[in-house]
Amino acid sequence: MNILLPKGFLANGIHSGLKKKRKDLSLFYSRTDCKVAALFTTNKVKAAPVVFSEEQLENTDHVRAVIVNSGNANCMTGKRGLLDAKKMVNAAARALNVPAATVLVSSTGVIGKPMRLEPVMEGMPKLVAGLSREGLVNAAEGIMTTDRFHKIVTRYFDIGGKNVSMVGVAKGAGMINPNMATMLCYILTDVDISREALKKALFVSNERSFNAITVDGDMSTNDTLVVLANGEAGNKTVEGKGKDFEIFSRNLGEISLELAKMIVRDGEGAEKFIEVSVKKAKTPQEAKKAADAIANSLLVKCAVHGGDPNWGRIASSVGASGIDFDPETMDITLDGVTFFKNGRFMGPGKRQKKNVFKGEEVKIEVLLHRGKAEAVTYTCDISKKYIAINSYYTT
Amino acid sequence: MNILLPKGFLANGIHSGLKKKRKDLSLFYSRTDCKVAALFTTNKVKAAPVVFSEEQLENTDHVRAVIVNSGNANCMTGKRGLLDAKKMVNAAARALNVPAATVLVSSTGVIGKPMRLEPVMEGMPKLVAGLSREGLVNAAEGIMTTDRFHKIVTRYFDIGGKNVSMVGVAKGAGMINPNMATMLCYILTDVDISREALKKALFVSNERSFNAITVDGDMSTNDTLVVLANGEAGNKTVEGKGKDFEIFSRNLGEISLELAKMIVRDGEGAEKFIEVSVKKAKTPQEAKKAADAIANSLLVKCAVHGGDPNWGRIASSVGASGIDFDPETMDITLDGVTFFKNGRFMGPGKRQKKNVFKGEEVKIEVLLHRGKAEAVTYTCDISKKYIAINSYYTT
Repeated sequence: MNILLPKGFLANGIHSGLKKKRKDLSLFYSRTDCKVAALFTTNKVKAAPVVFSEEQLENTDHVRAVIVNSGNANCMTGKRGLLDAKKMVNAAARALNVPAATVLVSSTGVIGKPMRLEPVMEGMPKLVAGLSREGLVNAAEGIMTTDRFHKIVTRYFDIGGKNVSMVGVAKGAGMINPNMATMLCYILTDVDISREALKKALFVSNERSFNAITVDGDMSTNDTLVVLANGEAGNKTVEGKGKDFEIFSRNLGEISLELAKMIVRDGEGAEKFIEVSVKKAKTPQEAKKAADAIANSLLVKCAVHGGDPNWGRIASSVGASGIDFDPETMDITLDGVTFFKNGRFMGPGKRQKKNVFKGEEVKIEVLLHRGKAEAVTYTCDISKKYIAINSYYTT
Repeated sequence: MNILLPKGFLANGIHSGLKKKRKDLSLFYSRTDCKVAALFTTNKVKAAPVVFSEEQLENTDHVRAVIVNSGNANCMTGKRGLLDAKKMVNAAARALNVPAATVLVSSTGVIGKPMRLEPVMEGMPKLVAGLSREGLVNAAEGIMTTDRFHKIVTRYFDIGGKNVSMVGVAKGAGMINPNMATMLCYILTDVDISREALKKALFVSNERSFNAITVDGDMSTNDTLVVLANGEAGNKTVEGKGKDFEIFSRNLGEISLELAKMIVRDGEGAEKFIEVSVKKAKTPQEAKKAADAIANSLLVKCAVHGGDPNWGRIASSVGASGIDFDPETMDITLDGVTFFKNGRFMGPGKRQKKNVFKGEEVKIEVLLHRGKAEAVTYTCDISKKYIAINSYYTT
């Protein structure tokens, strides 16, 4: 695979020695200043690089680079952790010859262990020397932890008569939950767009993608989503409304959703992809609450895993979600087969049920008949592998 | 085992044919009227026997019997389900020669399948004929689903110079969560106590026992907790305060807590028992929220399962719980070894860590240093067996 980064962007990923063998240090760089929009974890326990990057963004309008390591989350590491994050930023800034104020930092991996900075420091010259417009795959590999495959989505489109491009790269796997949990995602584009418009577009696209996925209901301390736009495509600056903004937002939304789905597909030990739709709810919040409750139910995940159309567990998880509704008027449809409607079990026959929950893509649809709002949550099944992976992660 | 029921109580459990081989129909009976206190699931999807029993209790002060089946939850079964619950009650009342208004009903098992009433009806004479004061073990077996062992706790104590006794029987296994989920529990005593005092004692004991346990965070549609007191011990009626009430409440609380812990130990596929204490919280609610978040974290359960003292996951789950606190002032102690204190990793050595999370009983203690409130939640680890059991339950 040979993906070309948008104009003016370079990237690289190397093995520095934080991990035993695999790549563990990545860099995203723009030769000119980028507008930036970013979202971070809402966990009260925030990793040092999250705290540090949030502070950076309070003091700068422009970003030139993001340095990312895997293998250590630099979280619950106190003052030393913050200093280590700063040192990583300073080292990257020095090697790139850009102001330290324009560099962000992310980390992912084990919580609570102090960073070993030597590999990062020693690897920096090699990392920078290897930067290239074809370096995205290396960079994508350098941010992986338990991921089974790297996650890259590319789009080419036109804005105001100019060819523009946008790429997104992400890592995910375990600990993904609806609040944008354990994932790192960097979206790079050469579109010229105002900072306000960029923030607005990111907020909307995030709600419908990264905030709509869940793997195990746990929320990470290190989640980071950064969009950088360097304007090198030369289009007329996109503002927060109108056709250009719509095109930009649509592409950002589609890249985000594709990456989010890839993260779910790569959920630790996951074998099946589950789309949970709740429709005809009174409010979008109500729909999301019900969809999240179904998607986070261990018993539902197990039922899908076993290919068992156990619709009762779906009913029960909606009942326990905290929303107010009448179970008698709820419809439950699994992979196109309606199991419950008008207050009674529809008793689909063996032939009808044969394929339900048997494929790699599974659909759960619940109609509440209370209004017009709807929500979709994406998740995966849970397998014995999940238990195995997460029982022996640090040891 | 030969447990004698409290004076005036009889019980039995038989195989009626709802299940293939194991016992599936139980009866608890008192030869005289019982004061009653009961709690039911808060799931919006309530099984028919729950709805029916709640209605019964609105219209009666006294209960004589509880009929219970396993193998079918009689839930999401519409009007027919309610009628089936009523038929079960009527059949038991007829066979026992007591008013139907004094009989409660419970069901546990698969959701969404109509009851097969024939086995229940045909088994009723045999069930009643076999009632005895030694019948508790049979009754305990008849209410089991995926339980690996039956759960009975007995107490003998004095109230006002009279020998009294109290026994509790429960079933649990999967789907147990902090809101009293999928469990059936019946506590029988010959103590003479007022209905108000009984309700007050039950409310308190439930908060500290059944509401303090979690297996997989799912909440059942059929949870039922019933306490029956027939007064045959002949003590002076216990009212809602004073020494006698304290003795009664303490015994009810201890029986409830023991049964609750048994349910956790028997969590589907569970190999380890986990006690999560959150101390020095600002409010009891805050302490409980944090303790529940830790106990319900899949990643924490996996870490315990693997004998891996991954304290970072504990910190992260408190951070994601929604409570407001300063991670830097949190202490985390696992099986007596402090891993995090005063904002930094304490770096316990290999010898110190050697036994952490290795035993069958595991303790997680978190101090928030925000106040004096505390809460305890009991849970179990998660194993590959849990996935296996729940992936193929209905098929």
